[in-house]
Amino acid sequence: MSRQQTLRITTGGRGMTDITAHVEEVARAGGAASGVVHVFVRHTSCSLTITENADPDVRRDLETLATRWAPDGDPAYRHRNEGDDDMAAHARSVLAGSSVTVPLNAGRLLLGTWQGIYLWEHRKHAQTREVVVTLLG
Amino acid sequence: MSRQQTLRITTGGRGMTDITAHVEEVARAGGAASGVVHVFVRHTSCSLTITENADPDVRRDLETLATRWAPDGDPAYRHRNEGDDDMAAHARSVLAGSSVTVPLNAGRLLLGTWQGIYLWEHRKHAQTREVVVTLLG
Amino acid sequence: MSRQQTLRITTGGRGMTDITAHVEEVARAGGAASGVVHVFVRHTSCSLTITENADPDVRRDLETLATRWAPDGDPAYRHRNEGDDDMAAHARSVLAGSSVTVPLNAGRLLLGTWQGIYLWEHRKHAQTREVVVTLLG
Repeated sequence: MSRQQTLRITTGGRGMTDITAHVEEVARAGGAASGVVHVFVRHTSCSLTITENADPDVRRDLETLATRWAPDGDPAYRHRNEGDDDMAAHARSVLAGSSVTVPLNAGRLLLGTWQGIYLWEHRKHAQTREVVVTLLG
Repeated sequence: MSRQQTLRITTGGRGMTDITAHVEEVARAGGAASGVVHVFVRHTSCSLTITENADPDVRRDLETLATRWAPDGDPAYRHRNEGDDDMAAHARSVLAGSSVTVPLNAGRLLLGTWQGIYLWEHRKHAQTREVVVTLLG
Repeated sequence: MSRQQTLRITTGGRGMTDITAHVEEVARAGGAASGVVHVFVRHTSCSLTITENADPDVRRDLETLATRWAPDGDPAYRHRNEGDDDMAAHARSVLAGSSVTVPLNAGRLLLGTWQGIYLWEHRKHAQTREVVVTLLG
């Protein structure tokens, strides 16, 4: 069994967008499948990540740390084609990853209570991002 | 084919617990399946990671580096609900990830000789963690 | 459906090798399958990562950042068996990960235009690396 759907998500620039409900909807539409849901972003300057869904300060603090892991406009960068946030975005994408996979049981995601699936936009300006959701069972 | 089992692992606080044998046991119970094994942790303050299984100093040095990647009690953090290690644990979880997937051949994990699967506890105190193992073939 | 193949890739020491074409070849050989392709490296001192395939400066800048994330020969390391780049390589492997998964549609990888799949060698000297590609559909 496999079932695949592409979502288009418009981000508001740097920050996280909770896409858990979108992924759950694809899972439900797949019937009572068990296996895993694979979520993949077709870009190299944003990520998919799983993190705490309760206190928004967690996402805020992750931004603070990410600017240390990959500073904007670092003088050591050679890749600067699209501005100060360009290379930093690629580096964040490598660190946080391009996909997440979540176990699926009878059509229901087995996320923990505090886990949400986030599209993490690493560019400063709003973008439309393609996210491919695949059910594997 | 998909087969799913939830393990409960009690950690001893910050540090890595080798869960390779547990995952192998689920794989064996699934018969001679080929495909991949997906391992997922239902929490946002610990990780699953694959690293060297020989010299324990590797895991010790990873702790040293992790305290630089996400320092405990950093003055910049706003999220401090559960203590100094709270936000650091969420950040480590984003960096090291919530799941690993390993190829499976005829019921056997295709790990390299030096690879082990570790539950990496990021909180300072012992926790009981739910780990979902799914065989996909 | 699952189909599995092991590739042997010789790297030129630290740096990234584009293996996208190799993974596409395995996908094509699998017929018109839909699902995901899972790519896994059987080592703890190199990674698989997805990043920009256009400007080589992106890969160069990622090396620059990686030497900050995990400096070679850091005085705090205890694991030094195989030289200055040994522990740094394990740490990079944890950060960038040991596997990537990409959605597959009718035998075609659903990578974005600018995404390439790279074997990221973290050791300074050339190595031969085993990469297991599994099609799941």
